Amino acid sequence: MSVNSFGRLLRVTTWGESHGPAIGAVVDGCPPGIALAEDDIQPWLDKRRPGASRFTSQRREADAVRILSGTFEGRTTGTPISLVIDNSDARPKDYDAVAAAYRPGHADYAYDAKYGLRDWRGGGRSSARETAMRVAAGAIARLIIPGVAIRGYVVELGGDAIDRAAFDNAAIDANPFFCPDPAAAARWEERIDAARKDASSLGAIVECVATGMPAGWGAPVYGKLDADLAGAMVSINAAKGVEIGDGFTAARLGGAENADAMRSGSDGAPAFLSNHAGGIAGGIATGQPVVVRVAFKPTSSIPTPLPTIGRDGGETEIATKGRHDPCVGIRGVPVVEAMMALVLADHYLLDRAQCGERT
Amino acid sequence: MSVNSFGRLLRVTTWGESHGPAIGAVVDGCPPGIALAEDDIQPWLDKRRPGASRFTSQRREADAVRILSGTFEGRTTGTPISLVIDNSDARPKDYDAVAAAYRPGHADYAYDAKYGLRDWRGGGRSSARETAMRVAAGAIARLIIPGVAIRGYVVELGGDAIDRAAFDNAAIDANPFFCPDPAAAARWEERIDAARKDASSLGAIVECVATGMPAGWGAPVYGKLDADLAGAMVSINAAKGVEIGDGFTAARLGGAENADAMRSGSDGAPAFLSNHAGGIAGGIATGQPVVVRVAFKPTSSIPTPLPTIGRDGGETEIATKGRHDPCVGIRGVPVVEAMMALVLADHYLLDRAQCGERT
Amino acid sequence: MSVNSFGRLLRVTTWGESHGPAIGAVVDGCPPGIALAEDDIQPWLDKRRPGASRFTSQRREADAVRILSGTFEGRTTGTPISLVIDNSDARPKDYDAVAAAYRPGHADYAYDAKYGLRDWRGGGRSSARETAMRVAAGAIARLIIPGVAIRGYVVELGGDAIDRAAFDNAAIDANPFFCPDPAAAARWEERIDAARKDASSLGAIVECVATGMPAGWGAPVYGKLDADLAGAMVSINAAKGVEIGDGFTAARLGGAENADAMRSGSDGAPAFLSNHAGGIAGGIATGQPVVVRVAFKPTSSIPTPLPTIGRDGGETEIATKGRHDPCVGIRGVPVVEAMMALVLADHYLLDRAQCGERT
Amino acid sequence: MSVNSFGRLLRVTTWGESHGPAIGAVVDGCPPGIALAEDDIQPWLDKRRPGASRFTSQRREADAVRILSGTFEGRTTGTPISLVIDNSDARPKDYDAVAAAYRPGHADYAYDAKYGLRDWRGGGRSSARETAMRVAAGAIARLIIPGVAIRGYVVELGGDAIDRAAFDNAAIDANPFFCPDPAAAARWEERIDAARKDASSLGAIVECVATGMPAGWGAPVYGKLDADLAGAMVSINAAKGVEIGDGFTAARLGGAENADAMRSGSDGAPAFLSNHAGGIAGGIATGQPVVVRVAFKPTSSIPTPLPTIGRDGGETEIATKGRHDPCVGIRGVPVVEAMMALVLADHYLLDRAQCGERT
Repeated sequence: MSVNSFGRLLRVTTWGESHGPAIGAVVDGCPPGIALAEDDIQPWLDKRRPGASRFTSQRREADAVRILSGTFEGRTTGTPISLVIDNSDARPKDYDAVAAAYRPGHADYAYDAKYGLRDWRGGGRSSARETAMRVAAGAIARLIIPGVAIRGYVVELGGDAIDRAAFDNAAIDANPFFCPDPAAAARWEERIDAARKDASSLGAIVECVATGMPAGWGAPVYGKLDADLAGAMVSINAAKGVEIGDGFTAARLGGAENADAMRSGSDGAPAFLSNHAGGIAGGIATGQPVVVRVAFKPTSSIPTPLPTIGRDGGETEIATKGRHDPCVGIRGVPVVEAMMALVLADHYLLDRAQCGERT
Repeated sequence: MSVNSFGRLLRVTTWGESHGPAIGAVVDGCPPGIALAEDDIQPWLDKRRPGASRFTSQRREADAVRILSGTFEGRTTGTPISLVIDNSDARPKDYDAVAAAYRPGHADYAYDAKYGLRDWRGGGRSSARETAMRVAAGAIARLIIPGVAIRGYVVELGGDAIDRAAFDNAAIDANPFFCPDPAAAARWEERIDAARKDASSLGAIVECVATGMPAGWGAPVYGKLDADLAGAMVSINAAKGVEIGDGFTAARLGGAENADAMRSGSDGAPAFLSNHAGGIAGGIATGQPVVVRVAFKPTSSIPTPLPTIGRDGGETEIATKGRHDPCVGIRGVPVVEAMMALVLADHYLLDRAQCGERT
Repeated sequence: MSVNSFGRLLRVTTWGESHGPAIGAVVDGCPPGIALAEDDIQPWLDKRRPGASRFTSQRREADAVRILSGTFEGRTTGTPISLVIDNSDARPKDYDAVAAAYRPGHADYAYDAKYGLRDWRGGGRSSARETAMRVAAGAIARLIIPGVAIRGYVVELGGDAIDRAAFDNAAIDANPFFCPDPAAAARWEERIDAARKDASSLGAIVECVATGMPAGWGAPVYGKLDADLAGAMVSINAAKGVEIGDGFTAARLGGAENADAMRSGSDGAPAFLSNHAGGIAGGIATGQPVVVRVAFKPTSSIPTPLPTIGRDGGETEIATKGRHDPCVGIRGVPVVEAMMALVLADHYLLDRAQCGERT
Repeated sequence: MSVNSFGRLLRVTTWGESHGPAIGAVVDGCPPGIALAEDDIQPWLDKRRPGASRFTSQRREADAVRILSGTFEGRTTGTPISLVIDNSDARPKDYDAVAAAYRPGHADYAYDAKYGLRDWRGGGRSSARETAMRVAAGAIARLIIPGVAIRGYVVELGGDAIDRAAFDNAAIDANPFFCPDPAAAARWEERIDAARKDASSLGAIVECVATGMPAGWGAPVYGKLDADLAGAMVSINAAKGVEIGDGFTAARLGGAENADAMRSGSDGAPAFLSNHAGGIAGGIATGQPVVVRVAFKPTSSIPTPLPTIGRDGGETEIATKGRHDPCVGIRGVPVVEAMMALVLADHYLLDRAQCGERT
């Protein structure tokens, strides 16, 4: 029931504020006997780490994760895995203005309205810094479902979409935008530079695909695999929308067009002729690739002064200082991947509980 | 943890199959002392009931709800409320073909892959008939948060969107499509007739707005109000996407444009100059209207024969008989409203638990 | 989170009041493909049914259970199983006095204090009638773990304990007290008759043993098998205490005496030299029989007038009419068995989720 | 659903092994605005700390707790509170024998049977060291319900009970046994010295009372206050039994004797003439003191060699070295108090959610 926890059987609880001493996560429910060390987690954190290129926040965090429990002699023991990352480059001084007034587009006002007080240093608990722990936990989730490959990338940035015909898997890690279309990546570089010059920011759409899925994971009717994915994705900072398979486009198709017809497959499993459904029917995986898209709003922290009010209710203006991403959607990619991994690993365990091991 | 349950403190568990003897729900966690009788629930069920117009399924169900527990002398007692609706117009014979082969676009194959057997009569548990219990439970949720008004309507049908300038609240209940734009409603009538003539079906986009929201409901970071709404909406049959506030459009805005600037309001609460965020920041309500949109795919049950396989793996074709909605999105409106009501009432209780009663 | 639900993966939600139209349960999470019909449940209900002998309540309930969902062609489908029993012999008139004043030893005052109103007819939700649904759900749980045998019996009634040396399994069902010691059963008959003559009632201690347990079920540290058993047992009406293995007696043993020493067993599993632990160590099953004892207080509903207060706070006396068990512990036996079955089946699924199927 | 988490709305997740780098807890759901610093927690930890007298383990742990998140400027923010205690006096070398063979009475074999591997250093996760985090979390729980006073003490040690007539509250903290009867405390000193001389250990019974309880906390029928207390208590290491109110003694009383008769109280609340029920009826608090008793088995770690088997199944003997409590029940007192505080604070929030604030 903890609102700072995620998952049903693979249960992740995160804690920590942007400028507190550390952030952390407890991962409970991991199967025993899995080889796990910091080295299995760190590469995924490095993908999300700020300061990796000039297109992300210049906050310098090593984001070095430590495992404090739940492993013994290099293997998971089945007990809770405690993960901690120290906050080494906190600069609460950057946030003096935030203490006095609410930043539009941020959670400042909402936290104050709810709790009557807030840790205003860098957004406190509402900071995207929390997503580092999602990535760390997601790295463990991947190890639970080694047969499933999860890949995320940006398909649209600032309204400029990739050319699907130019999709190149190899390109994704070859540019700072996780962009599968090299031409689009080149255009995005200019767009982001322009946005920064304008003291503005950009939104993005991230797509994530899981392949190697067994049919059968998921569940009716409130624990649907797609429902859990949707909740997981919208729980990410700055996410404002989510699609499964064709998503909103499906609402514009005819029934015959949208149905994924089936033929006999060579391996006993059906050969689907299309994948409008994004690999999920009735909340249950069909064995096709699971496809999710997430809309990220533009970064709310921008240097442009905006009309706002102070804690005292008086009108003022605020421009966000500090070191911020011009487009949070970019670093959203490893976070989306992590949430996908967490949901899938969780449903693997849930399915194994009710239906036994699939062969 | 039950996958057939929904909510944290206001906990709804539904049961039943499309062509079994009955469907039902248990609503636990309702505050005591609320006036409740069948008459408080039935009008919402009547909005969702099949056969209400020629644009919905012609299955004839009275959908008369009975309350079997949880009330005494017309008031809720705080104990579980059991709701039951008998299935009176079941015609399992319509589904003989479904027993032998999987309907593309349906959950038939996925259920079989997961469970190794399935109740093929009308889709069994995966039927949209289950949503009647969501609507019934949602009616109770509304009574828990009487200050909040929840209104859903169709904003796009078969790719044809309403004209926002022509938005007329009074029109919504004056046509069989819950359409706020009378001109669009007229066009949709033709579209649906055409789709039916083509043995096809149409998708739709439903929007739902909650007004009268107090700031403060919701929670970081996995129990976010918008995350719970997204999960709730995508758990509805045929839903393939969800947006909060501007949703995917927000991904195309600049940071200054997207931020909802604030001014001093007359009543102590801030006066927001826009509502791109859809009333939620950092997972917590700001007090602005909460805005959600849900994409419904076209009905999968269509008379057009489609390539498929049988339970034996052999290739065949299937055309769905039975009585089906040409556009499930229409009857999705009361379901979306119900899920919104359930999520909001649940977060009201959750907020009251942690932060006390708001005045 | 529903307080009227029980279990983690095998999730039971019960509803209904003693003198409402019906009582029911929804069992979610049951594995698919298990043969299940009313006949698999009814025999266990018959053991608990009132009116079976002159030593139990004379309320005449057929307690005929109906399955309304979750099975198809005689097998479980993996979807929620809805169970309903109609209340056929309700006599709310017996409870007029209860409407006006609180019965000492009952939940009358506590419900009123909590909810501000209560269904006073036969105790409403607080009636032991609810336990019929536990027994029904427990019957399903047994089918999930067919290798485990669960047997309960009364070891003490009104302070008169059985002679362990005379323990005879065959005797348990041969007397109306589930008593494994025929001589004790004969004495208890007189005791109960005497208590009834005195307008009084008696308490009892029920023991329950599960054999055929695989080592490994259970979990640290809050989901311990024994912790879940303790919570389950104390949730039964009139239960006031619970012991695992030697229980309170263990507190009087020395460390060497209490430790269950191990020798090499013939089958690879250890041969324990004793079972003081009751089959559980560190919250995890050792493979030895799981042993639990539950203390039931004497029936609170007695004809002896007792000092009490009315809803208005005024002092009065109340004597409980109606048809009541002189010793609720007797009919507690099938309920204790059911709760044991539910906890064990739940932990079987939980263990399978995390650690895979045990062979 | 995490088995290493506890509570419904006040949710505690603990992590860490006896001889790992640290142990910790995350407390989620705490109301905002409560003054909280390490100094509010440390005194309770000091009561539980090993090495405080010669009657407890001589392991030297400062048990200095650090708060890493969830507070700001000395107050709780409503976000997760992360608590960490470093393990400073770990001596894994003491446990070489434990790596090879299972200690009878311990969880060694059960963990191995479940997980296929185990952290054998000091019992790993199954060590009573975990209870330090319960005490730390319990200290926070106390701050949530300041009107409730919770007091635990030992009422029996090694089979030697206190004289209730000599009960002296002031004595509890004046001896190393939390014993309210000074004469008994003197006897226990000799008993423990004798047990230690015999290379043995002793059990104990701890009683805990909560006063200042409002009527109404708790819930039917599986979330009963007493069921939650029973589960909480039996989740404590070495606990083998639990009683509510008169507990097992109630099973020996007559119905009239056991009922707690009521008279009009001066303050509007009823004046109960007795408290056999231990302050709870139907799972709901009556406003009387809540009374719980917990049976602790004798410490399993004793120097006496015991027959056992090795990981290889071969027969051997093991004597536990290391620094252990001769009677774990003594240091169980602050743990029992903490679990009581956690359950009560949790039910306070749960009750406030459903029924609103009580005045």
